[in-house]
Amino acid sequence: MFDVGIIGATGYTGGELARLLVSHPEMELKVMTSRGNAGKPVDKVHTYLKGHVDLEFAPSIAGADELDMVFAATPHGVSMEHVPGLLETGVKVVDLSGDYRLSDPDIYETWYGKEHSDPGNLANAVYGLPELFRDEIAAADLVANPGCYPTAAILALAPLYAKGLLAGDVVVDAKSGTSGAGISPGPRTHHPNCAESVIAYNTGKHRHQPEMEEVLRKVGKGGDVLFSPHLVPIVRGILASCYADLAEPMSTEEVVSLYDAFYRGERFVQVVDEASVRAVAASNRCQVSPAVIGGKKAAVFASIDNLVKGASGQALQCANIMLGLPESTGLDFPGLGV
Amino acid sequence: MFDVGIIGATGYTGGELARLLVSHPEMELKVMTSRGNAGKPVDKVHTYLKGHVDLEFAPSIAGADELDMVFAATPHGVSMEHVPGLLETGVKVVDLSGDYRLSDPDIYETWYGKEHSDPGNLANAVYGLPELFRDEIAAADLVANPGCYPTAAILALAPLYAKGLLAGDVVVDAKSGTSGAGISPGPRTHHPNCAESVIAYNTGKHRHQPEMEEVLRKVGKGGDVLFSPHLVPIVRGILASCYADLAEPMSTEEVVSLYDAFYRGERFVQVVDEASVRAVAASNRCQVSPAVIGGKKAAVFASIDNLVKGASGQALQCANIMLGLPESTGLDFPGLGV
Amino acid sequence: MFDVGIIGATGYTGGELARLLVSHPEMELKVMTSRGNAGKPVDKVHTYLKGHVDLEFAPSIAGADELDMVFAATPHGVSMEHVPGLLETGVKVVDLSGDYRLSDPDIYETWYGKEHSDPGNLANAVYGLPELFRDEIAAADLVANPGCYPTAAILALAPLYAKGLLAGDVVVDAKSGTSGAGISPGPRTHHPNCAESVIAYNTGKHRHQPEMEEVLRKVGKGGDVLFSPHLVPIVRGILASCYADLAEPMSTEEVVSLYDAFYRGERFVQVVDEASVRAVAASNRCQVSPAVIGGKKAAVFASIDNLVKGASGQALQCANIMLGLPESTGLDFPGLGV
Amino acid sequence: MFDVGIIGATGYTGGELARLLVSHPEMELKVMTSRGNAGKPVDKVHTYLKGHVDLEFAPSIAGADELDMVFAATPHGVSMEHVPGLLETGVKVVDLSGDYRLSDPDIYETWYGKEHSDPGNLANAVYGLPELFRDEIAAADLVANPGCYPTAAILALAPLYAKGLLAGDVVVDAKSGTSGAGISPGPRTHHPNCAESVIAYNTGKHRHQPEMEEVLRKVGKGGDVLFSPHLVPIVRGILASCYADLAEPMSTEEVVSLYDAFYRGERFVQVVDEASVRAVAASNRCQVSPAVIGGKKAAVFASIDNLVKGASGQALQCANIMLGLPESTGLDFPGLGV
Repeated sequence: MFDVGIIGATGYTGGELARLLVSHPEMELKVMTSRGNAGKPVDKVHTYLKGHVDLEFAPSIAGADELDMVFAATPHGVSMEHVPGLLETGVKVVDLSGDYRLSDPDIYETWYGKEHSDPGNLANAVYGLPELFRDEIAAADLVANPGCYPTAAILALAPLYAKGLLAGDVVVDAKSGTSGAGISPGPRTHHPNCAESVIAYNTGKHRHQPEMEEVLRKVGKGGDVLFSPHLVPIVRGILASCYADLAEPMSTEEVVSLYDAFYRGERFVQVVDEASVRAVAASNRCQVSPAVIGGKKAAVFASIDNLVKGASGQALQCANIMLGLPESTGLDFPGLGV
Repeated sequence: MFDVGIIGATGYTGGELARLLVSHPEMELKVMTSRGNAGKPVDKVHTYLKGHVDLEFAPSIAGADELDMVFAATPHGVSMEHVPGLLETGVKVVDLSGDYRLSDPDIYETWYGKEHSDPGNLANAVYGLPELFRDEIAAADLVANPGCYPTAAILALAPLYAKGLLAGDVVVDAKSGTSGAGISPGPRTHHPNCAESVIAYNTGKHRHQPEMEEVLRKVGKGGDVLFSPHLVPIVRGILASCYADLAEPMSTEEVVSLYDAFYRGERFVQVVDEASVRAVAASNRCQVSPAVIGGKKAAVFASIDNLVKGASGQALQCANIMLGLPESTGLDFPGLGV
Repeated sequence: MFDVGIIGATGYTGGELARLLVSHPEMELKVMTSRGNAGKPVDKVHTYLKGHVDLEFAPSIAGADELDMVFAATPHGVSMEHVPGLLETGVKVVDLSGDYRLSDPDIYETWYGKEHSDPGNLANAVYGLPELFRDEIAAADLVANPGCYPTAAILALAPLYAKGLLAGDVVVDAKSGTSGAGISPGPRTHHPNCAESVIAYNTGKHRHQPEMEEVLRKVGKGGDVLFSPHLVPIVRGILASCYADLAEPMSTEEVVSLYDAFYRGERFVQVVDEASVRAVAASNRCQVSPAVIGGKKAAVFASIDNLVKGASGQALQCANIMLGLPESTGLDFPGLGV
Repeated sequence: MFDVGIIGATGYTGGELARLLVSHPEMELKVMTSRGNAGKPVDKVHTYLKGHVDLEFAPSIAGADELDMVFAATPHGVSMEHVPGLLETGVKVVDLSGDYRLSDPDIYETWYGKEHSDPGNLANAVYGLPELFRDEIAAADLVANPGCYPTAAILALAPLYAKGLLAGDVVVDAKSGTSGAGISPGPRTHHPNCAESVIAYNTGKHRHQPEMEEVLRKVGKGGDVLFSPHLVPIVRGILASCYADLAEPMSTEEVVSLYDAFYRGERFVQVVDEASVRAVAASNRCQVSPAVIGGKKAAVFASIDNLVKGASGQALQCANIMLGLPESTGLDFPGLGV
C-alpha cells in the first residue's frame, strides 16, 4: 500500500483524484491540503465523498517525506512554489498544473505571464502522457501531468506526427465541458450565460497551444498548431477535432491501420468509428477516430473526460507507473455511456 | 409616444425590459441607469441590444419628471430608496423588486430581513397581476410587479381560491430556470454544479411564500401555502406544480370549465391540457393545466417565462394599463415552442 | 465467482448492469440476451463497454441452469413470460420490470393494462429494497427490483411511515432525468422538445403510485400518495420532493434524528442537509434531507441516480444479498459530484 | 397586405415561419399544408401558436394562385415535386429545402442521392442570402433559401473570398443545436444520448459542403471547403468556426476593417469581438468575429439561430425583398441574450 497526498485539493481535479483514489486498491489517501479550507472536513466541500474520505483539509503537507506520492492540484504558478521542496523530501510528485509542461522557461514566461521560479527542475520533469512517454515516466520523480486539451489533441495527432505524414499546419478545434473551467464561478460558466450557447475563446492564445506543439515535435515531424478552444454546455468531456493536409494521399483504411498499430495494447486509447464524449465520460479512456477526406486531408477526432484522462485519471495512471504498479490499477472501468 | 426609463438596468430583468421595449410601438426608452456601469454603452453590457439601444448607462434618473413611466429593476431593499422620490416627480412607477408587494411592513421585515424605509407607500402600491387587479392597476401610480414564482402559482390557484373550493393547505412545488437567480455568478448557478442536477432550496423560507398567501387571500378563501422552490437546469421558465385537497369532490371537466370561465378573454393566460415551459418561452404567456385526481385532490400546473410574464413582460403589461394603452401592446407574440 | 446473465440487455438498464458487473469482483457476466440484436457484439450497441465485455447478444438464455443469477431487464409484461421458466431451472432472478412489484394481480391489471400471466409467483417475489427488506431478499429466489421513483420516494418517507408520524395524504413531486424514459427515442425526450423545458406527466396515473403506496403500508402507517412525476432535462438522476402534514408538531432536529437512527449503518443511504442529484450521480447512493416547516409539515427530499440505485445498482445490491456476498460488493464508490 | 402560405408546415421551420408571420405587419398567413396532419388544427401540433394561428392544416395548397408567396418547408426531394406547379400559378416561392441551392443537377444527384426532377428551374432559382444576392432576390420568382450551416459559414468567409485574400483550403468546423436535426425523434437527438455529449458527423460528406463552395466561388476566389459539422446540446444556434491561411500577412485590425466595410449597412450582420450564439437566439441576426492569428492565419467565427437566420427568418427576409417590402419588416428585433 502506497501512501499519497494531494495539495490544493479543494478544486475539481483535487476532488476527482480523491474520488478515484478511494477505489484504488494500492494507494491510500492520507492527506489533502487546502489553504482556504484548512480544518474543514473534506466531505463538507466535496459532499459526494461522504462515507469515503474521512479527512480534514490540512493547511500544508507537513510530513511529505512519509508519503510515497504527492499530487499537486495547485494552480499554475503555485505548483512551482511547492514542487522543489517536495522533491527534496524524496517524495515523487505528479503536478497537475502547467508549471512543468514546457521545457523552456522563456516560453513559459511568454505564455503564463510570469517568470518561472524553478527552472532547474524543468529538465527533470517528464511529460505525463503514458502512451508516448511510458519509460521516462517510470524513471521520473517529477511528472508534469498534461493539460486536458493537449491530452486529446496529442493522442489524436501523435501517429501522424510520428510518421511525418502531414504537410503544413494543423487546426485543433476543441470543445470542452464547463468543468474544465474549474470550481470558481464566473460569467463564462454562469448557467444562464452558457447553457444555450457555444463560445470560442483565446483562439491562438491559449497556453495549451505551445504545449501541443512541443510534445508533437518530440513525437515526430509536422507543422504548427492553430489551437481554437470552445466552451460547450456539457459538464464533463472534450472533443478535439483536428484537421491537416496529408503529405501524400492516403485512404481512411490506411490511416485507421496506422492508428490501430500505434495504439495496439494501449488500455486507455481506443480507435473507433466515431469518438464519443459520452462513451468515455467518467472514465480514463480516450476514443480516437481518424478519417481521410478526399484522399488528401486528415480529420481526426478524439474524446476524453477532461477531469479523468484529461487530469486526475491520467495523474493516477502516471503515479501507477512511477510506483511500479500495473498501469491501469484503479482505473480499469468503462465510461458511463449514458 | 410615452417616454420611459429603467433604473438598475444592468441585470437580466433590466435587459429584458429593454429588449421588449425596442419592439413596443408606443413607448420610447429614454434612459437606463446603472451605478456600476454608468457611462458605458448599454450594448457593451447587453450585447444582444446592439443596433437597437443606442444609450449609455446614466448614473441616475435625473429628469424623471419628463418621463411617463419608470421601471425600477433595482434589487430588493434598493427600490424603496428610489420610489418615494420618483413618485414625487409625478412619474408612474412599476417596481420589479419585492419592496412593495407585501402590504404589512412587519411581514416585510420578517421575510426581507430589513426594516421598510417607505412604509407609507405600501398602501398606495397595487399588486401588478393584471388578470386579478386590472382596475386597480389602471388607477395606480405605483405598481409592485409580482415575483416570478407567485405569478405562476397565483395564476394556477386563483380560480380555486376565488370560489373557495379547497380544503386545507396547498403545496406549491415550483421549478425555476437559472435566469431567475439573476446575473451574478455563484456556486448554485455555476454550470458544472447545476447542469446535471436539481436542487430544492429555501423550502418554506422563500420570500415568495407570504406573497402568494397574501394575494391568494385577497382573491378568495383557502389555506396556507407550503412553497418549495427548486432550481432546474434550464435558462428561462418556471413550472409551478400546485397540490391541494378539494373541499368537495369535483371532476376534471368541472374544474377545467371553471378555469376556462375564470380566464375567458385573458390574452396571456391559456388553459391547456399540459402546461409547457417551452411553449411560453420568451413570451408573456402563462399556461395553466388543472386536473382532479381521484375526485378529491386538485393538481394544477402553470408555466411561464420567468423573465417575461414572471418579470419584465408583466411589468410592461402593467405599464400599458397604467398609461391607457391596450394591455397587450408590444407583448402579443407567441412563445418559442422550440 | 458467480456466473450471471442479463436478459433484455439492449436497453439502458441492461447496459448499466453490464457496466457495473465488469468491475464486480465476484460475478462474471456470461450471457446477455436480446431479440433484436442477437448475434451482434455487445460493444457495438453499448459502445462504452468496448474492451470490457467481449460477448455477442444471445437470442435467448439457454443454459440458465448453469448460471447463479439472471437479471431480467425486459420490459413490463415481457418479464413475466420469462420468469417462471427461469425459476424452474433453479436460477435466482432479479426482475427489473414492474411485473412482480405489486402483490395483487388485479391491481397489476388495473395499472399495467394487462392480465398478469404468472400470478402464482407474486407471493414468492420479494420487493428488492434492501434497506427495508434485507432478510426477505436474502431468502428469496425472485426479487422484484423497485421502480426508480419508488426507490427515492419510499426511502424519503419510510421513517415517517414506520413511526406513523404523518396525518393525511402525501404529495410526491418527483423530477426525473431523461434516461428514465429508456433508450427508445420519442417526442418527449427529443432534445429540442425537452432540453429547455420541464413537464409534469401522468399525475396520479403513474404505475409507480400504487407501488409506493403498497410498500409504504408494509413499512408502517400513513395516507395515500399523490404521485406527480416530472421530466427535467438532465440525463441521470431523480429528486423526489415529498410533502405531508405531521400528526404532531415536531422539530427538524427531531426528524433528522429519527432519520439518522433509521438509516444508521446503511451504506447507501445518507441523511444530509441538502439532497443533491449530482452528488449521487453514477453511484448506488441515496441522499435524504428531511425538514419540518412551521412545526407541522414535513418536507423530505431524496436524490438517487435512476439507473444505479433506481435500477441496475440496486439490482446488484439485491443480487449480492441473495448470493451471500457483502451487500456493497462492486458498488462501494462515491458519486461523481461534478 | 400580402397573402402567404406554407407547404409542409408541421416541422420546426414551418412552425417557426408561422411564429414569425403572426407578428409580420404586411403578410397574412392564409394556409399551412401537411399531408400527415391534414384537418388537424395547427395549434394542436404547434401548441405555442394557440391564440395566434386559427387554421387547420390543409391537405394541399389548392388556390395557390390567390396567394402572393408560398414558402416550401418540405423536405429535400419533396420540394422539387411542388415547385414547378406552384411557379406555374404565378405565385412566388421561397424553398427552404436544398433542392434548388446547387446549380448543377449532377452535383445535386451526387450529394442528395437522387436525380433532380426539375432541373429546368435550377437556372431560375436565386440563392437567398440577401447580404450577397439582394438584387437577384428582388427579381426572382424562386428563391432557394440557404442551408443553416452555409448561412453562417458563407457570411463568415465572404469578405475574404470577395477580396481573394486566402491561400489554400478552408476548414469550417461548425457546431449546431439539435433543432437543426428537425422534429423527428431519433437516436442522435435522444436527450440521454446527446445532452452531455458532442459529436462530429458526416465530416466532408455533408450536403452543405458543396453549397458553401459553390456560393463562395460566386462571391470571389478561394480554396475548397472541408466542412465538419458537429452536434452540441443546445436547442437553437450554430457557431461556425472557420480557419484558413492568409495569402499575405494581415493584422486583425485590417481584417476587422474589411469586414466592417463589407457589412456596412447590413441590418442583420454584426461584426463583433466575440460571436455569441445566445446573443442572436430567436433573432434574424448573424454575428461575425474575424481575427488573425500569428499574422498569417484567419480565424473567423459566425453565430446564428439556425431556425431564424438559418431558415425561417431568412426566408421571410427574402420574401420581403421579393414583395418589395423593407427587408427587415417583421424581423427587426434583438436576440434573447439570455
